[in-house]
Amino acid sequence: MLHGHNIIGFEKSAKGQDTFQSFSTLQGTYLADKFHIATNDEIKAAIDKAVAAFGIYSKISFVERAVFLETIAAEILQLGDALLERAHLESGLPLARLTGERDRTMNQLKLFAGLLQEGSWADAVIDTAIPDRQPLPRADLRRILQPLGPVAVFAASNFPFAFSTAGGDTASALAAGCSVIVKAHSAHAGTNELMATAIQRAAEKTGMPDGVFSSLIGEGATLGQQLAANPAIKAIGFTGSYRAGMALYETVTQKRKAPIPLYAEMSSINPVVLLPETLALKTTAIATTLAGSITLGVGQFCTNPGLLFVIKSKATEAFIESLVATLSTVAPATMLNQAICKTYYADRTKLMTTKGVNLVYKGDDLQNEYKGTPALCTVAANEFIASTALQDEVFGPCSLVVICDDKAQLIQALAAMHGQLTGSIFGSQEELLRYKEVVDILQDKTGRVIFNSAPTGVEVCHAMVHGGPFPATTDSRTTSVGTGAIQRFVRPVCYQDCPQELLPLYLQNNNSAGVMRKVNGTYTRDSIV
Amino acid sequence: MLHGHNIIGFEKSAKGQDTFQSFSTLQGTYLADKFHIATNDEIKAAIDKAVAAFGIYSKISFVERAVFLETIAAEILQLGDALLERAHLESGLPLARLTGERDRTMNQLKLFAGLLQEGSWADAVIDTAIPDRQPLPRADLRRILQPLGPVAVFAASNFPFAFSTAGGDTASALAAGCSVIVKAHSAHAGTNELMATAIQRAAEKTGMPDGVFSSLIGEGATLGQQLAANPAIKAIGFTGSYRAGMALYETVTQKRKAPIPLYAEMSSINPVVLLPETLALKTTAIATTLAGSITLGVGQFCTNPGLLFVIKSKATEAFIESLVATLSTVAPATMLNQAICKTYYADRTKLMTTKGVNLVYKGDDLQNEYKGTPALCTVAANEFIASTALQDEVFGPCSLVVICDDKAQLIQALAAMHGQLTGSIFGSQEELLRYKEVVDILQDKTGRVIFNSAPTGVEVCHAMVHGGPFPATTDSRTTSVGTGAIQRFVRPVCYQDCPQELLPLYLQNNNSAGVMRKVNGTYTRDSIV
Repeated sequence: MLHGHNIIGFEKSAKGQDTFQSFSTLQGTYLADKFHIATNDEIKAAIDKAVAAFGIYSKISFVERAVFLETIAAEILQLGDALLERAHLESGLPLARLTGERDRTMNQLKLFAGLLQEGSWADAVIDTAIPDRQPLPRADLRRILQPLGPVAVFAASNFPFAFSTAGGDTASALAAGCSVIVKAHSAHAGTNELMATAIQRAAEKTGMPDGVFSSLIGEGATLGQQLAANPAIKAIGFTGSYRAGMALYETVTQKRKAPIPLYAEMSSINPVVLLPETLALKTTAIATTLAGSITLGVGQFCTNPGLLFVIKSKATEAFIESLVATLSTVAPATMLNQAICKTYYADRTKLMTTKGVNLVYKGDDLQNEYKGTPALCTVAANEFIASTALQDEVFGPCSLVVICDDKAQLIQALAAMHGQLTGSIFGSQEELLRYKEVVDILQDKTGRVIFNSAPTGVEVCHAMVHGGPFPATTDSRTTSVGTGAIQRFVRPVCYQDCPQELLPLYLQNNNSAGVMRKVNGTYTRDSIV
Repeated sequence: MLHGHNIIGFEKSAKGQDTFQSFSTLQGTYLADKFHIATNDEIKAAIDKAVAAFGIYSKISFVERAVFLETIAAEILQLGDALLERAHLESGLPLARLTGERDRTMNQLKLFAGLLQEGSWADAVIDTAIPDRQPLPRADLRRILQPLGPVAVFAASNFPFAFSTAGGDTASALAAGCSVIVKAHSAHAGTNELMATAIQRAAEKTGMPDGVFSSLIGEGATLGQQLAANPAIKAIGFTGSYRAGMALYETVTQKRKAPIPLYAEMSSINPVVLLPETLALKTTAIATTLAGSITLGVGQFCTNPGLLFVIKSKATEAFIESLVATLSTVAPATMLNQAICKTYYADRTKLMTTKGVNLVYKGDDLQNEYKGTPALCTVAANEFIASTALQDEVFGPCSLVVICDDKAQLIQALAAMHGQLTGSIFGSQEELLRYKEVVDILQDKTGRVIFNSAPTGVEVCHAMVHGGPFPATTDSRTTSVGTGAIQRFVRPVCYQDCPQELLPLYLQNNNSAGVMRKVNGTYTRDSIV
């Protein structure tokens, strides 16, 4: 079924001698299929095709792009159970979860298709001419967002569908009008091949140019670095570890002459602040919610709550007891891949043995079975403030409770915290108002502030922000989830005194599509007469 | 009148022993006033104040910010002729030009004040909760743009008002809700002091926090680098040379741990394409327009047309003759400062003596009088394509005509061109349609495509894009002129299930201000009921 080829535009290609096989943590064995690592010639071919395709694809109508995205969603569904089963083998994730993730991935594509159909996202702004203005006339000026160029997407291991080959980065870049080259994640190369084939089929069926999408197989240190350094690549989407993200940042800023946007989502430990009165009132309910969040997907979510802030009290002790009680009942589950599992146990051991950190609970080390078990530690806030090492992400079902003496120390501890994707706070309305400074700090340090629920779960919608200050990402100005993600792959272009026939459709006087535009400072869907 | 102090929030400070004086190219002498270079302690004090002020300033209402900006404009006018006269002495620019630039600078502040009053710029997006959705409920999610943090602004030499102390970068950063530290340009330190004092007065009068604005004196290699490397600085606005801009880029990417946005507008030679039929019909008119644009402000505009693309013909020869005839009548005029004047003559000599380049006209070298005279060269397109050195900016009234054999070679030459702020094209509607590929290339390589007029002149309005692909800027996703510039200093923050009382004003259900919002995917000014 699988061919182990790179997918270069409409061609399948396997010129290289070097191959590898995916390891299944679920089966504890290597899977049979061999995948061919892309050669330098194949990388070059994909880039050349992406450049040529961009020239065509960037100019086609939003509606045609929308049909392409819809067709990708349909082709993904067409892959049927083979896709789910392969992803299950390669990622160890349960079939139910993968089924949900597949739906989310298709819905993501459809959401961008809807955005394109509607059209207003491109931010058309028109200032009409004022020929008789004194002392100088004003020209006719019209601005709209245009795509940046070929985009490299680095697939993530923890969401083999939603943040991978046909995931959010690919969907938003294609929606923006960019051609895309995906670096497949080696942990799920078979899943990648199936998904890439679905995109390839959709491109052929809808008459998209050869090279609008390619998928290459190889390691970050070689393929990844080559893509990042290539002058033809105009933006990068990445989800992965801090180390890999910062290696990419180094390449982008030092190995290429022209700066490009790098959207690396890297490391977040997602603080959860538990306000004292509410914690005392709802001790068990909050413990249950957080235990579920800490262990969801074996803790392998970018929004996993790795830091819990509490103020010392009897209720806090009861909460920790309740949390441990729940965590200890969670069944060990298979982790994504060997490296993640090994790193999880190493990192949690490092945390547990850090000066000042108290181990409260740890499940057995099931590294040999590639399974993760939960762990919980506590630390006094003064120790947390003194040591930034306590903010190193432990990727897996492990969390650290930071115990503060009082509100003032809570604020100090939060102020010492790095940038995060999310910050959650549990409190009654009345208590939240008394802790407004805490809410303000969470707002300043995160991309999303969550009230009275756990951080895991990222809705794909218009208002979502999945991003945040460094080290959560390398660029806090954007989101990688939701329709806002399309903004990462565009730049504004202004047309001065341009003839109607040469203007982009949504800048023309006739606004028959009825997109929302800002005309002479006023929002309107009207045509210009 | 002038004190030569740094302005650190509400304090004047001159702790350093080192001073310097501005040199007047107009008078050929140093001006009397001494300016104190900021010490490390003063730099730290300004940064500490900017951080503290940000905590307050970022949370005040848009309307209060608007009043602050309006008051800055009023205080600038209050400075009266003293401002114009000092700028005239320090920059050599004529009083009439400076009067216009002052108006533009005040209007810029008022335009941002209007944007704040209206409020829709903050891009409020709301997806309301769907509690009964299957399989999972949807939370209430609301997103709005929030300011990044303290911003460092590097003043430019060529617009002592509009791109300097109280210029576009300062106006847009303050509008966004960021505190600002300006690195004064040493060529017009007196102008800076007057402008900084106006901002300081406006801040005090309108009750803004101490430290919302500071202005420091020092060199790029010391003060500039310290600001760029400081972890508390969260974004940088810069207008200046390629060399200085790239030195900043190196510091930002290598000397600090957390990446920040660097908006460096650096180098653009603003190609002008002259389509053959139109050039033949309007030879003299186009030559007159371009001669005016090449010599405007002694060629010291970022949008100065440094490259003219033509197709070989009799009309082309007549055009070059006509251009030379007009250029030779332009009176020599005082340049901004000694370094710019010296570099201009050195760079134009380098261009003239480059292999394949033909000198057509040059005015006398008036370096000793600090005056610039025009120059014009030609080069065959194949030479242009072969040598990227021919794309080095010559900052001053000098232009290079690239002579192409035919349309195909014109397209090749344009394809070899670097990123630019602007690209202009002269052609009748009918001819433009036949040259659509050329328009497409200009769109792909520039921030603004101009039809049938010269690139100089940048309207401050909603639709303007003053930006473009590298090396024109380090970040093509934004503009430094027009209301779009506010987007450079913000990031989206999402609030999930947030109580109404804690939501930012424009995310609350009650939309009494009537800002435009996207609610469940639809644009509306309605409240949520």
